[in-house]
Amino acid sequence: MPLRNTELCDEELTVSTSVVTGWPPSRQEQIKNFLRLHNLRAWIAWRPDELLMLSGYFPFWGASLLLYFAEAEPLLFVPQIEPRGHSPSDLRVQEYPWGDFKCGDPYAELVLMVGDQLTKNGVKAEQVGMNAGAFRTSLPIQAAEQIPIPDDFAERLSALAAKRIPDLANLYLRKTPEEVDAIRLANRIANIGLRAFFDNSQPGATEAEVAAAVESIIYRQIGCDGIFHSRGWAMVQSGPNSADAGRFNRSTGRRLMNGDLVLIELATCVNGYWSDLTRTVAVGRPRAEAAEILDIVCDAQQAAIDAIRPGVSAGHVDAMARDKIAAHGLSSFFTHHTGHHVGFRYHDPGFLILPGESALLEPGMVVTIEPGVYVHERDAGARIEDNVLVTESGHEVLSRTGGGQS
Amino acid sequence: MPLRNTELCDEELTVSTSVVTGWPPSRQEQIKNFLRLHNLRAWIAWRPDELLMLSGYFPFWGASLLLYFAEAEPLLFVPQIEPRGHSPSDLRVQEYPWGDFKCGDPYAELVLMVGDQLTKNGVKAEQVGMNAGAFRTSLPIQAAEQIPIPDDFAERLSALAAKRIPDLANLYLRKTPEEVDAIRLANRIANIGLRAFFDNSQPGATEAEVAAAVESIIYRQIGCDGIFHSRGWAMVQSGPNSADAGRFNRSTGRRLMNGDLVLIELATCVNGYWSDLTRTVAVGRPRAEAAEILDIVCDAQQAAIDAIRPGVSAGHVDAMARDKIAAHGLSSFFTHHTGHHVGFRYHDPGFLILPGESALLEPGMVVTIEPGVYVHERDAGARIEDNVLVTESGHEVLSRTGGGQS
Repeated sequence: MPLRNTELCDEELTVSTSVVTGWPPSRQEQIKNFLRLHNLRAWIAWRPDELLMLSGYFPFWGASLLLYFAEAEPLLFVPQIEPRGHSPSDLRVQEYPWGDFKCGDPYAELVLMVGDQLTKNGVKAEQVGMNAGAFRTSLPIQAAEQIPIPDDFAERLSALAAKRIPDLANLYLRKTPEEVDAIRLANRIANIGLRAFFDNSQPGATEAEVAAAVESIIYRQIGCDGIFHSRGWAMVQSGPNSADAGRFNRSTGRRLMNGDLVLIELATCVNGYWSDLTRTVAVGRPRAEAAEILDIVCDAQQAAIDAIRPGVSAGHVDAMARDKIAAHGLSSFFTHHTGHHVGFRYHDPGFLILPGESALLEPGMVVTIEPGVYVHERDAGARIEDNVLVTESGHEVLSRTGGGQS
Repeated sequence: MPLRNTELCDEELTVSTSVVTGWPPSRQEQIKNFLRLHNLRAWIAWRPDELLMLSGYFPFWGASLLLYFAEAEPLLFVPQIEPRGHSPSDLRVQEYPWGDFKCGDPYAELVLMVGDQLTKNGVKAEQVGMNAGAFRTSLPIQAAEQIPIPDDFAERLSALAAKRIPDLANLYLRKTPEEVDAIRLANRIANIGLRAFFDNSQPGATEAEVAAAVESIIYRQIGCDGIFHSRGWAMVQSGPNSADAGRFNRSTGRRLMNGDLVLIELATCVNGYWSDLTRTVAVGRPRAEAAEILDIVCDAQQAAIDAIRPGVSAGHVDAMARDKIAAHGLSSFFTHHTGHHVGFRYHDPGFLILPGESALLEPGMVVTIEPGVYVHERDAGARIEDNVLVTESGHEVLSRTGGGQS
């Protein structure tokens, strides 16, 4: 359903045709450099996004542990209850016992098994690192509950891994071509969800109904194109509720009305890789003061995207969007950052795209570009968010391929 | 759509008519007893399920903090970006500053504010307790990512709260009548989802399509009956995949076929309170060796439910189910517990219903009863799971009211 503002944004679409070549260093090389830098011979990981980033394996339960050696093949420990055949075929895998009432404490066994492997490889505790943090991981495939790791798990591992390195952002920043393809797939599926958003944003539908339709079609993609996991979290805000979208995103039972702006925030996880998108459409003919907001946000977003190329600072990209909004006297209504890294998580670690940020864009980085303007006095808010790959010569908008834009 | 096995279970349905009266002690009384027991004058909580249990407030972002005083009204700190009007009207609320790039570290500010309040009330660090664990909390309304708390948050609070008490299970076990009503509502909504499961379990549909239909109708309930949050996680396994359902629950692209058993595991969160249900149906006429499994599981589940009343041990309830399955020589295919507490989380803390467990059932407890039999050789697995309240004189099956059973 071609809605006015969507078309507007589309017409200005610039998709770089540059090809992803050998940059950045392979994932394996990046990890080895990281271990060398910290004088480590092994790394212990169990956070779902860390496992994905280190090995391409995305856990079902979130109770798997990867032992990454500087000088030997990585070894993955999975609980017996993990789906068989779920691990990548190129990973060595050991099962550890798991059962509800017959095998005691599975983690005690796991810690012993990890210790055995370290001893076998002659690696001492002071040569082993880990990120002991529990928060801010991605959820595993079983996404209804946090990962089933005991609270003292890091403590129990401390006799084996003495070095704590909480910030792995440098490892998350530059995606390999294979990872970019996986993020591209997540965006393709997300676009199928956005098409459902456009189709369902009709007067009389509730915000929750529109969001439910989007999540539903994303879930239904499982089984297509090698997709074993596809889940969306859609949040739709309409009319006056859209003016809250700079602070939070939540669907209510409000029914869409002619003249509303309707905003969707959509997180999509496909096979462990994430897309993070926002669209804003008008139902029927938008009120002039709402339409103005939407036009300005579209312009600001495109200006920021156009500025993306290697060597440009994050602060410069932010300024491109922010200046456009300021030119219309609305800068106080754009209260958040312009973007963040994305792909291994809904929000990857690393620098933000915000005022004054001097970090430079490099090939292989994937960032969101998501300026927004939210004005309660106009009962309207708008944000447009895409996921953009920094290529060798410019950029590629990963989220504007596929079905959602026609 | 009345399917054979569903009817079977229904015919044997026993709903106790006992009325929930003054038991257990009010939530406030339970908490005060807990504080007294541990010689505490205050408690700091930020885990979403802990906030819900302590105050009835379910956070949007998961970045709120509750300061519960033994001798004064509780005080809730919420980030500025929390939806306004979302906190219960009987809670004192203070906002703490939050912004993406203009207000520094919001948690530093929060810790100062909490410290101020403790000082003001003359409460010393050794009189303040908290559960510092990060894992095994429920997800907040924003469920696509873990709660946005920094990994060192507990550490930063340690100058204010010196007592660490990781096991609050005793506080979770006995639900008040108001909490039971909230769990009953979650089950009523879950039953609407189950009706969609029955209707959509048709030959040719993929597991993911059936699951997506269930989640969709649950999300659509937002806006009805005071529901501000309604989210389901549905996992559907059919035919040979159902035989895996004792180890994991995951929807694939497999298409349902006549003769399949089809199992749904359904977690539902409504306004913060949880239902945890499983149903198994046959598509068309089930093969005899699959039908036998389903019949046995139905019998076993009903036998366990029938045994539920105050003063009965969890081990006895488990044995009622397990003996029925053993009588058919299938005990080695029932590999998990018979049940767990439920309501504040998908899986509440506390004792399990499993062999030899001597803990006794008490009025106000809500447990799942979920025996299952999974036989790869028969390409079939079945589990039936309900949520059962222990009443003063017996039990009430909270999950068999509402729409899903007709």
